[in-house]
Amino acid sequence: MIFKYRRGNPIKTDSTVMYIESNNELDFFNKIIKDKKILFDIDENTFVYGLGGSNRGINKIGYTYTSYCSDDPVHTEDKTSLYAAQNFFVIKNKKDIFGIFIDSPSKITYDVGFTEIDKFNIEIESEDYDIYYIKSKTILDIVKEFRKLVGRSYIPPRWAFGYGQSRWGYMNEEDIIRVYDKHYENNIGLDMIYLDIDYMDNFKDFTINKERFPDLEKLVKNLKNKNVRLIPIIDAGVKIEKGYDVYEEGVKKGYFCKDEKGNDFVGSVWPGLVHFPDFLNKDAREWFGMKYKYLIDKGIEGFWNDMNEPAIFFTDRGIENMFSKIEKYRGKKDIGVFDLWEMKDSFMEMNNSDLDYKKMYHNLDGNIINHYNVHNLYGYNMTRSAGEMIEKISPEERKLLFSRASFIGMHRYGGIWTGDNFSWWSHILLSMQQMVGLNMCGFMYIGSDIGGFSGNCSEDLMMRWLEFATFTPLMRNHSAIGTRNQELYQYKNINKLSSIIDIRYRLLPYIYSTFMKCVLRDEMYFKPLAFEFDDEISIRIDDQLLIGDEIMIAPVYKANQNGRIVYLPEEMKMVKFKESNVLCEEILEKGHHYIKTELDEFCIFIRKGKKIPYANIAKNESEVNFDVFNFLGYDNATYEYYNDNGIVREVSEKYIKTI
Amino acid sequence: MIFKYRRGNPIKTDSTVMYIESNNELDFFNKIIKDKKILFDIDENTFVYGLGGSNRGINKIGYTYTSYCSDDPVHTEDKTSLYAAQNFFVIKNKKDIFGIFIDSPSKITYDVGFTEIDKFNIEIESEDYDIYYIKSKTILDIVKEFRKLVGRSYIPPRWAFGYGQSRWGYMNEEDIIRVYDKHYENNIGLDMIYLDIDYMDNFKDFTINKERFPDLEKLVKNLKNKNVRLIPIIDAGVKIEKGYDVYEEGVKKGYFCKDEKGNDFVGSVWPGLVHFPDFLNKDAREWFGMKYKYLIDKGIEGFWNDMNEPAIFFTDRGIENMFSKIEKYRGKKDIGVFDLWEMKDSFMEMNNSDLDYKKMYHNLDGNIINHYNVHNLYGYNMTRSAGEMIEKISPEERKLLFSRASFIGMHRYGGIWTGDNFSWWSHILLSMQQMVGLNMCGFMYIGSDIGGFSGNCSEDLMMRWLEFATFTPLMRNHSAIGTRNQELYQYKNINKLSSIIDIRYRLLPYIYSTFMKCVLRDEMYFKPLAFEFDDEISIRIDDQLLIGDEIMIAPVYKANQNGRIVYLPEEMKMVKFKESNVLCEEILEKGHHYIKTELDEFCIFIRKGKKIPYANIAKNESEVNFDVFNFLGYDNATYEYYNDNGIVREVSEKYIKTI
Repeated sequence: MIFKYRRGNPIKTDSTVMYIESNNELDFFNKIIKDKKILFDIDENTFVYGLGGSNRGINKIGYTYTSYCSDDPVHTEDKTSLYAAQNFFVIKNKKDIFGIFIDSPSKITYDVGFTEIDKFNIEIESEDYDIYYIKSKTILDIVKEFRKLVGRSYIPPRWAFGYGQSRWGYMNEEDIIRVYDKHYENNIGLDMIYLDIDYMDNFKDFTINKERFPDLEKLVKNLKNKNVRLIPIIDAGVKIEKGYDVYEEGVKKGYFCKDEKGNDFVGSVWPGLVHFPDFLNKDAREWFGMKYKYLIDKGIEGFWNDMNEPAIFFTDRGIENMFSKIEKYRGKKDIGVFDLWEMKDSFMEMNNSDLDYKKMYHNLDGNIINHYNVHNLYGYNMTRSAGEMIEKISPEERKLLFSRASFIGMHRYGGIWTGDNFSWWSHILLSMQQMVGLNMCGFMYIGSDIGGFSGNCSEDLMMRWLEFATFTPLMRNHSAIGTRNQELYQYKNINKLSSIIDIRYRLLPYIYSTFMKCVLRDEMYFKPLAFEFDDEISIRIDDQLLIGDEIMIAPVYKANQNGRIVYLPEEMKMVKFKESNVLCEEILEKGHHYIKTELDEFCIFIRKGKKIPYANIAKNESEVNFDVFNFLGYDNATYEYYNDNGIVREVSEKYIKTI
Repeated sequence: MIFKYRRGNPIKTDSTVMYIESNNELDFFNKIIKDKKILFDIDENTFVYGLGGSNRGINKIGYTYTSYCSDDPVHTEDKTSLYAAQNFFVIKNKKDIFGIFIDSPSKITYDVGFTEIDKFNIEIESEDYDIYYIKSKTILDIVKEFRKLVGRSYIPPRWAFGYGQSRWGYMNEEDIIRVYDKHYENNIGLDMIYLDIDYMDNFKDFTINKERFPDLEKLVKNLKNKNVRLIPIIDAGVKIEKGYDVYEEGVKKGYFCKDEKGNDFVGSVWPGLVHFPDFLNKDAREWFGMKYKYLIDKGIEGFWNDMNEPAIFFTDRGIENMFSKIEKYRGKKDIGVFDLWEMKDSFMEMNNSDLDYKKMYHNLDGNIINHYNVHNLYGYNMTRSAGEMIEKISPEERKLLFSRASFIGMHRYGGIWTGDNFSWWSHILLSMQQMVGLNMCGFMYIGSDIGGFSGNCSEDLMMRWLEFATFTPLMRNHSAIGTRNQELYQYKNINKLSSIIDIRYRLLPYIYSTFMKCVLRDEMYFKPLAFEFDDEISIRIDDQLLIGDEIMIAPVYKANQNGRIVYLPEEMKMVKFKESNVLCEEILEKGHHYIKTELDEFCIFIRKGKKIPYANIAKNESEVNFDVFNFLGYDNATYEYYNDNGIVREVSEKYIKTI
């Protein structure tokens, strides 16, 4: 059952695909809503789940989260906003269980037992919003109802479930070819190589640097012949440069965001000065989305949309403010500590400043709207722009598309990665925990930068991260320029690393089939134990995940461990992998077990009475036999297997066979 | 057995108190030392312990650590230098076990299986150093030998084991009185209130702001009548101000560090422009140390030495560099991203810059030495200055003294706190892990800022942090100005919080006695399980600690948990505390156990056949009966009880009775 409360005249987000009549008189709404505030009582038996890829644990209690897409790469525990803004959550306590979706692009703050340990306070900045109240018997039922409300999740081609190698720092064709060759020589599975910003001519979207990539089309073709795809980045900002067609057209057609005077808004990002396409304007969306054709025509089959919070490094306003702050102190004797900090702050505030966002305007169906009020819709609509037009360009075949910023609704057009993380052990766990909230909000094709984007990744960290990422739909090794090279062949024990990738490919029929069923049926691919088991131990476990209906994973995410404690909520069959193969299998009783796993070993736990497909060793999705394979798990079990051609856009029960 | 290798002519650190003849021909040294590098092979069965309060886990394998005292408050996993520089470690592998102490004040980098997973590389910047190789049967024996080499650890008065409340932001006498009153009214135990920088007149050491503290002596006396001590901060930098006696004397006597022209070196810290006392100069040390008498004469009985890495916020050099960098861009059109970052970097490099440290000079026994080469000795010698002179001022009675920066040798003069941490759950665990390396290096009176210095501390985080800190010798709640107030009375469930403090006082006879025995016998107060048990599980456990010989703790350090898995390496008796009392006791078998502990519950595990003293409920150290108490643990056990008057400087076996 879904009930809706409408306050004022909310901005249309297109998050939902079903119409629900509002029912403002409902007792429930009157109890919890006080103007722009929503209040719930909580206690030590309350659990709050959801809020997409927000910070901290699976259970959101104990901190504050602000929905405000933020380009902040340092995801320490104290950060309240990461890249996404996803306003759906479920509250479960002893008496009750229900879901809430706040459909509003405005800044929303969730104080979940932080300021007051027994209160969950929500504050919506806007006067206008829709709130959906979703009532059902279980968390999974509530999620399913919610997912129906917001529409079917995006599906990438099957090859996008292969392993991808990325790095900001591949400068030219030779770099790309070397990455391919090194994977090939070292027998490391590979399906995708990603192009970060350096493939472009001066960071201009839909251009190619001809010196570095003299014949991209040929490079794409050559790699495609080896079944490896090149996946370029597209940034939100369009470089201001006379003669550059995207810029010229955008200006002419009025498709860029405006400033308060009605001129095209100017910010600085990688290309230098840019305008920002007005993705809230349907015409601009169609126009920009069709630009992807330029690269699709060169054989490109996938994209990642970046910098679309949108990130703004600085504007003239910020620069002027900085110079004027600093001017005061020029030549001054005895500059004080607080003087210096004032100067420093003038630098710090420039980056992604609300003062700039508040000077930027959109044209939404003819209405001029301040960007600050719809900030959370920007990345969503960039990816919608691409998704809608790519479907027009390629109506039969799926293409790969994922985004950094996101908002509920965007899940229909693309996946996401969790943005710039660090080579921290704690970020393995964080990304595990993020997967749950993201799935609840409809984001299914998801993953984190394996090994960490910033910082230097050691071999053991890479190994453990890969072992978890074996189960994320998006499995991409990505890192920043200036950090230690972290392609798998950079380490000492390449065989050990590549053998983890081998397991990924052996499990690909299972991973893909599970993913497809979850999308088709609005189910969750990643679930915490708490969503299926209600014993006292299961409900608190935040470092194990159920994958589909058949397996549980319990990755090692701490340094210098050769095993970990795993809790089995029921009997399961442990299958341990090593050297591209099953090392051992054992049926384990319900309860806690210390599972020994050396660095290059990892486990799945197959649920009682279940089995899963287990394919041949392959180094590429094309080499995986999706029709003939063995099984892991319990004898006499059956498995519902989803098997299409891996590319068809249709999603249907007809592709499912019980085997 | 201790062997010494000497290279060149090392700077005298006074880290050691025993003379060891050097034996450069020893095969061991020739195998591992290559000029300024030391190399060990490691494998998956190697463990490296020690390096004081350095970052990351108890086992140091998997990362890089640089000994270089750094005022960096953001202790994320990627930081290589924290506040301390402590160059003792133990390597244990299948074949061998030994300790290494590098006695050199220079920057030293330890790459422990990070760059190459099978190599432990050490690089010493200086050409001159002593290396001690310590061979014995067990880790604990090696630690004991090392501790004999470097001398007996500092001991504070017994009241310093009570609970302390601190905050940067107590501005005046009224604030202090309110803190006392609120603790009293709410029945929260208290022994110390700390004064951060605002008690001083313009941040000048050994001055009092008369407007804010019109009669400090009286305040001290009034609080002392209630058995609460006021503990002021002392910073390293001395404000440049005409007429200020410390400044005037220091200049006149030539006791400040010099610049390259021989003028007194100038840096900016809290007071504005300062000189830095040359703590490497014995005369300057005596002079500065005697200044503490000014406050001791007002009844003060303890101090914390801060900013003694030394922190330098900026110098004229940095400011000039910044202005010149920025000047280039003034009025420039189209400032690029990298232009802006160059400007920003010119701000960032100002703080604690090596460029400044390299312009600062010491007078060590008549030799002029560049600060950069002896940087790690600075905080050590500040605290040595205070410790040596306070002992002269008060030869009979111990005083409280601890420091932020440290180096081995300093452990004889004071304790340390782990510096500016964050209100992060992960920092409970980090501080647990730091305790081990610190104890190995001789630092015994230690603790971390409870609740976190930076960031906002929620009630549940405070509760769990207190539960761990119940066992740290230094138990201080400290936080930064601008953060959420985190005195215990600021939260909803004050009783639950204060009942944890009650347990601290009930365990005070045990904590103090254990501490004293460990100092007397060069033993460790905090030990990982690996130091006493060699089973496969114990050696990997990094989140449980043994305290003395009698108990094990396994704190809950994760949010939203009402229990955790605890591993018992042998049978133990669990004692669970709640509401200031024992809630239950149970003998548990060897193995893993899920121990349920609600937010306000916590456990100790008493080792088989042991018992510990358990005193009356008290709200202050003076109320604890150290002569008459009950016991927790196994019947028929005995306990070696150290019981002196809590203040006498003598340490002796004579104070130990078996009871």
